[in-house]
Amino acid sequence: MGADRFAVRRQKLVHHLKSTGADALLVTNFTNVTYLTGFTGDDSFLLVGKDKSILISDGRYTTQIGQECPDLEVFIRTQKQTILTATPEVLKAAKVRKIGFESTSITVAELDKIKDGMKGQEFVPVAGAVEELRQIKDADEIAEIRVAIRQAEKGFEVLRAELRGEQTELEVAHDLEHSMRRFGAKRASFPPIIAVGERAALPHARPTEVRISADNFVLVDWGADARSGYKSDLTRVLFTGKISPKLEKVYRVVLKSQLAGIAAIRPGVKCCDVDAAARKVVEAAGYGKYFNHGLGHGIGLDIHEGARFNAVTDTELKPGMVMTVEPGIYLEGWGGVRIEDDILVTKTGCEVLTSTPKDFESQFVN
Amino acid sequence: MGADRFAVRRQKLVHHLKSTGADALLVTNFTNVTYLTGFTGDDSFLLVGKDKSILISDGRYTTQIGQECPDLEVFIRTQKQTILTATPEVLKAAKVRKIGFESTSITVAELDKIKDGMKGQEFVPVAGAVEELRQIKDADEIAEIRVAIRQAEKGFEVLRAELRGEQTELEVAHDLEHSMRRFGAKRASFPPIIAVGERAALPHARPTEVRISADNFVLVDWGADARSGYKSDLTRVLFTGKISPKLEKVYRVVLKSQLAGIAAIRPGVKCCDVDAAARKVVEAAGYGKYFNHGLGHGIGLDIHEGARFNAVTDTELKPGMVMTVEPGIYLEGWGGVRIEDDILVTKTGCEVLTSTPKDFESQFVN
Repeated sequence: MGADRFAVRRQKLVHHLKSTGADALLVTNFTNVTYLTGFTGDDSFLLVGKDKSILISDGRYTTQIGQECPDLEVFIRTQKQTILTATPEVLKAAKVRKIGFESTSITVAELDKIKDGMKGQEFVPVAGAVEELRQIKDADEIAEIRVAIRQAEKGFEVLRAELRGEQTELEVAHDLEHSMRRFGAKRASFPPIIAVGERAALPHARPTEVRISADNFVLVDWGADARSGYKSDLTRVLFTGKISPKLEKVYRVVLKSQLAGIAAIRPGVKCCDVDAAARKVVEAAGYGKYFNHGLGHGIGLDIHEGARFNAVTDTELKPGMVMTVEPGIYLEGWGGVRIEDDILVTKTGCEVLTSTPKDFESQFVN
Repeated sequence: MGADRFAVRRQKLVHHLKSTGADALLVTNFTNVTYLTGFTGDDSFLLVGKDKSILISDGRYTTQIGQECPDLEVFIRTQKQTILTATPEVLKAAKVRKIGFESTSITVAELDKIKDGMKGQEFVPVAGAVEELRQIKDADEIAEIRVAIRQAEKGFEVLRAELRGEQTELEVAHDLEHSMRRFGAKRASFPPIIAVGERAALPHARPTEVRISADNFVLVDWGADARSGYKSDLTRVLFTGKISPKLEKVYRVVLKSQLAGIAAIRPGVKCCDVDAAARKVVEAAGYGKYFNHGLGHGIGLDIHEGARFNAVTDTELKPGMVMTVEPGIYLEGWGGVRIEDDILVTKTGCEVLTSTPKDFESQFVN
């Protein structure tokens, strides 16, 4: 990974800033700082200006910054300074007149404290500028997402191989994170959902002491957070006992819906139209009102970022976007099925990055 | 755990608000919401007023709120509302004139959006009000911290029993979190530090592929996050090989310093004086400049909260505070020693809540 791709991102940001009237942007969202610099630590701000950028950090990170972004100018605050007293010093030295700040990240008290240390400069709220750039992944980012997917899928292979009726949802969730780490993950990208039988009717079920043997199927929604910070997000339903005709029917509807959603993905298509393509299948089968969430979301350094597949988002897809496609049918007191993959928008259509089998027959665990 | 202890906390907050001029406080820090309600989910705000409090949440949490805080008034936003459009509706219905907001938690964009939905009401920044209450732990909180300590100490027992030269720092860190979860922890309270030999000279070392056998000692800084959200934080140094006279000397100085710090803890003593009591021992041994951080910090729902033991904090200790005491000596290129326990300030002095052995002889792993 070359350092220059971060410089390219900062240049794109500077270009974007022109429309906001700000001369420079004070980046306070740590994930955005990572995106623009390659520095993976936290507690650090970044000033991005036309001529140069400066990372504002502290002595704990001096060595790490030298390794991760050797070409970047750095201001290491003294032990007597906080980041909020060091930042005005950097802003004044940089002679920025109109200072953009990330209004969706900085707190009211932080901004007040920084303003207290300045005089005369104008502050301009800038919302979502870096987040917009982050929607389009470059080749390095796509490679990192593939790493996170590989870690998640290897972890799931182990989960599947080890699955036993006496395990609780909690044990399976903890073992899954541990397995993904053995394959190089930093951690799970979110607390895994392991939901047995009727508990799968809750889209955000938290694992409990319920045992795998308590029903005939288990929903697993999981992902890995790679060392780079890029994430993956999948869902599968495994069959651990005799499967009813109803479950088979629901499973096949959800799968057909998911494939229809994926088939609709290509540059220029609106997000809401992808949602509609998948939802139509569920509605035609009579389960429309039991699919009570959007079809998917962007993924990258954050587990939810960028565009959404839902009824109202009219963002047009562009090559380089990575989105989840995850329709579900949830029947209270009975259970739920959701199938989720991670999809890259390509120049001509899309590529399904995940490869864990999802056909009905492959879900039976012996 | 009775629900009323949360009502008691909210009453204390209302009392505190009088000095700020606000009629009610909009609590936006999710940890503060948990502290004031018992609700352990997130994405929810709480309005605390003289006559009543209202939790502002969404449909995912309806069941959980009913279980965790059945007596609390709840506003569940519709799917078409965001929390930022629902909040003005609640504020208007509650007829609050002067609305306090948590300025160290709410972002500039969030506050602007809420103000957009209102008219005429005055907004007053309130910083640290709930955090101040959280400094003094009640009996239930102390019990929860003991649970988190037990989980951490059991996990460490397993780490110690399983320790092998071929393990990497990363493997030990991951196994430790997995062990703590087997004893009931939700997760580690922070990414555990496992630092072999000279790597222990970095107070915030991140685990690497370095093997335990690479040197004769390993520093372990770890803690558990209990299901309740309360946390523990300990540090020990284990001896895995032949120990040099220098390491023994440094270890004994740090231990003596830690015991001196603990001995100074009782109600009415200033935080800086506890720091000084421990630091004096390190300085007298000639290692003063190698103890380059504060002596400790408050602990509770956050891993760092409340008062700090350092040279400048003159906060007086009160019964119910729980603080870490963790002196260290760090010699670059050689290694470091830190010993850390969690201490409860009692009416007459203090109680060391942690009990993992720390005498020199007990650190040898066979």
